[in-house]
Amino acid sequence: MKLSLPAQTILLPSPVLIIGTYGSDGRPNIMNAAWGGIVCSKPPCISVSLREATLTYHNIKQAGAFTVNIPSEKYLKEADYVGMVSGRDCDKFKETRLTPEKSKLVNAPIVKEFPYTLECNLIKEVELGSHTMFIGEIVGMVADSEVLSPYQLPDIEKVRPMLWGSFGSVAYYNIGDKLGNAFSVGNELQRS
Amino acid sequence: MKLSLPAQTILLPSPVLIIGTYGSDGRPNIMNAAWGGIVCSKPPCISVSLREATLTYHNIKQAGAFTVNIPSEKYLKEADYVGMVSGRDCDKFKETRLTPEKSKLVNAPIVKEFPYTLECNLIKEVELGSHTMFIGEIVGMVADSEVLSPYQLPDIEKVRPMLWGSFGSVAYYNIGDKLGNAFSVGNELQRS
Repeated sequence: MKLSLPAQTILLPSPVLIIGTYGSDGRPNIMNAAWGGIVCSKPPCISVSLREATLTYHNIKQAGAFTVNIPSEKYLKEADYVGMVSGRDCDKFKETRLTPEKSKLVNAPIVKEFPYTLECNLIKEVELGSHTMFIGEIVGMVADSEVLSPYQLPDIEKVRPMLWGSFGSVAYYNIGDKLGNAFSVGNELQRS
Repeated sequence: MKLSLPAQTILLPSPVLIIGTYGSDGRPNIMNAAWGGIVCSKPPCISVSLREATLTYHNIKQAGAFTVNIPSEKYLKEADYVGMVSGRDCDKFKETRLTPEKSKLVNAPIVKEFPYTLECNLIKEVELGSHTMFIGEIVGMVADSEVLSPYQLPDIEKVRPMLWGSFGSVAYYNIGDKLGNAFSVGNELQRS
């Protein structure tokens, strides 16, 4: 039975974006954000939406840059932890024993242990209400050679990313089985 | 070994968003989009980025509304198919045998067979280059009663959504195992 329900910000799956920034004092910080996604192909852009209460919000405004680090599932605890505490109160890199490395392209830190990172320069801000959307142009990518496809692209089966089940389950999941090839499996329908 | 690579629009996982719209002639259409995500909590907003070449781009501009329908994994072929053909050339609802139902809240169709749908009114457009970002305020949600959690929220384990592995695998995947509870499993790190 179909039910009409109140509006909810439930997108399934939602990503686990670990946003890397520097403070004005040069201190690296990371936070866990779920409100974001790719927003343009040319130029390549990604958005992440943040509340003004976060340190990352102010760091992005000041530095004009951020990284989007994708954790593999084995960094479950670290990813959850950096979404629970503020960089104002502690050094999240130190507490998680993750390693910040300066991006060669943008003024933001890369999480060394994570399989790949998108390096972004802030190009636009859109105020929406509780959240401000920061749109970053992806100017480069850093990846572990072991997670790449033959075309030098991050392969989901090697990256083993997490995903967030949003408010319905309030839990993280991993990737399951391959269902079919994109731009391909739909052809079977045409023949039916 | 860490490699510095060209910029890529690879976010893992990426969602499978089936965007429902009406044309100016009242004809319902659906397309498969991966560039989007939740962008604000209050008001609840979601973005979807589209190329001007798509029929959906023009339908959203004219109707000022769209739906985001989340397919369960059993609609793999249908989801892929509606991303491969244009609504200018065919009736995608007819060809997929999916059923359009008018949203009670917005001027856009709901895919009856899919487990849940976000109903959106267009509130902002952001031109970025190849893609224009359409930001919709989520004004309601329609869901099958069987996919809801005890709090009446779509439960990922019941929705069984698909995800897209982006350009590294060019394939769809399903959801795997629950890894741990959000805002909880990170606490274990604090004790270490």
